[in-house]
This record gives sequence, structure tokens and C-alpha cells, in this order.
Amino acid sequence: MGRWEPNARGRLAKAALELYGELGYEQTTVAEIAKRAGLTERTFFRHYADKREVLFDGSGALQELFATAVAEAPKSVAPIDAMMAGLEAVSTVFEGRREHARQRQAVIVANAELQERELIKLASMSTALADTLRRRGVEEPAASLTAEVGVAVFKIGFTLWLTAPDEREMSQVMRESLAGLKTVTARD
Amino acid sequence: MGRWEPNARGRLAKAALELYGELGYEQTTVAEIAKRAGLTERTFFRHYADKREVLFDGSGALQELFATAVAEAPKSVAPIDAMMAGLEAVSTVFEGRREHARQRQAVIVANAELQERELIKLASMSTALADTLRRRGVEEPAASLTAEVGVAVFKIGFTLWLTAPDEREMSQVMRESLAGLKTVTARD
Repeated sequence: MGRWEPNARGRLAKAALELYGELGYEQTTVAEIAKRAGLTERTFFRHYADKREVLFDGSGALQELFATAVAEAPKSVAPIDAMMAGLEAVSTVFEGRREHARQRQAVIVANAELQERELIKLASMSTALADTLRRRGVEEPAASLTAEVGVAVFKIGFTLWLTAPDEREMSQVMRESLAGLKTVTARD
Repeated sequence: MGRWEPNARGRLAKAALELYGELGYEQTTVAEIAKRAGLTERTFFRHYADKREVLFDGSGALQELFATAVAEAPKSVAPIDAMMAGLEAVSTVFEGRREHARQRQAVIVANAELQERELIKLASMSTALADTLRRRGVEEPAASLTAEVGVAVFKIGFTLWLTAPDEREMSQVMRESLAGLKTVTARD
């Protein structure tokens, strides 16, 4: 490690997101990101492998948090409610970060390769959640179906939260999305 | 078009799938596929853009079939049941093709790039189905949630159908998967 730069990681992420929005993701170089952050390229590469990693930095931790909350829900809780516990846990990460999440989403939506990366992230989340549910004793295909439902609620709920006109809490939006899903699949 | 080769397209697809299974997808060349099919490389490229297209050839038609069946379900039918009509329509395509579908699946599972392509296909299907539901008058987020559910049932049901010990019809497996999903999301 070179000399210490106060909050270099956060400054680089902020600069990258601004530039992706202004110039486009493809057009932005690491040199420009470092310059905007008032840091060197070397410092950038001490924190991120490449300019894509700035956008997907938190994915592993998010999946871990989601799966851990599902695993640790009380044994008496139904699989779908364990999933809701996971969605609540994930929501805490995004508290006060709606503007950041919006900027990131705009960059992703504009680039096919980044959208693919996002899909892979969600598929990986679904696989991890199904594993977690099986370890809770949920059988197949219920485990995989519940995991897919959890990820669907996260995906749709996330977009709703980003686009809501008011500043609603994400956990609230996730609860409403799950309720909406229960309504559309209600047995006759 | 050059001289007519009886069922060149089908012979190429069969040869490709065999070779992907035997040699691996990356290791197989178009020259080998053509040779196995008793045809020329030129004939291969008259039918397919590249060796990947052999595997994703029917994706567009499948999505179209799915969405059309959802669009044409009687107006009185609930969104989730319109989705089931789509799953029934899609199932007819796979009748008598389980062995082919199994071979294809084994190739895809062994290759990260092909798995990504498969995820993109499913995401595109979900987007098309949500569009179709909105045109049926379903509001958001119900349209997107129902579309995600339809794709989740298709994805899980497809794997169940491929791995079932008995030769059950796909439409039957899809009905059971949807019933399973209704069970896991049942309101308390």
C-alpha cells in the first residue's frame, strides 16, 4: 500500500459514477476517474481491478447478507417469510443511498454488457438462496421456486423503490412487492 | 442458395449437439460439425451465423409463442392463468424432444458464456411477457411480478421435466410447478 488517501475508495466510486453518467461508461477512462477524484491511477488499481468493478463492488457482500438473514430466520418461519427477512436485511444497505442507486442504475441500463453482469448477479443470488433454503430443510422444487420468488421481488421492488415519487423506505417497498406477488399467485 | 441438401439444418444441429457433448463446446469447430453432418462449411454458414446460434436458434420463436398465447388467452382469465396458457403453448414445442433438450442443457451448463446467453434469453422473455400483460390491461407492478413468476415457473419446470425419472409431459410438469409456486406464496 502506498501513502494513505482519506476515503480514496469512496471518492473513486463517486467520481466514476459521475463520469459514467456524464461521458458514458464506455467512454470513461480510469485516468479520468482518478483525476476527478484527485488521486492517481495507481491508487485506483489498489482499490478496484477495473472500471466495471466499481459498479459491482458490493454484489458479493449483498448476496451474503441476504442468504445469512434467510439462514438465521427462526426455524418456525415459513420459507417465503424467511425470504422476507432476507429482503429486510438487504434493504438496510440501501438506506439513504437512493440517489447513488439511481445513478448506478442509469449507467447499467445504458450498457448491454453491464445489464448481463446484473443478470448474472441475480441468478447467482437465486442459486445461493435455494441452497440456503435446502439447508433449512426445504425440499425441491419448493426451495428453488421460493428463491426465484425472492429474487423477483427484489428485482421488481428495487425498481419500484428507485422510481417511487416519494422517499419510501426500501423495506416497505419490498413488503408491498411481496404482498403484490402473493396477490397475483393467490389460489382461486 | 446452393444445391439443395435434404434437411441440412436439422442434420447440422444434430451433429453440432453430438460434438459439443463429445469434444466440448469450445473445442468443436464448424469444420467438424459440417463433416459429421456430411455437409460443407459453406452449407453450415447458410443456416447458422456461428456455432453458438445452433443452440439458441429457437429462442425468438419460443418467446413469440409464449407471449402470443398469453395475449390470446380469454379476457376473463386472470393474469397468472394467462401465463399458464403461455406455458402450455411452450410445452407443445418440446413434445418428444426431451433427449435433445437434455443434450443441449448439458452443453450449456458446462459453459459460462452459454449460461449467460441463457439468462439473457429468460430476461428478454420476462420483459416481453410483462409488455403483453400490460397490453391486456394489467397494471404495474402486477404485470412485471406475474411475468417474473411465469419465467421462474418455466425455468424450474424445465429443469424438473429434464430430470424427471419418468417421461412426464412438460405441460403437466409446468402445471405442478405453478401449483408449487402458489403453495409457497400462499397467504397466511
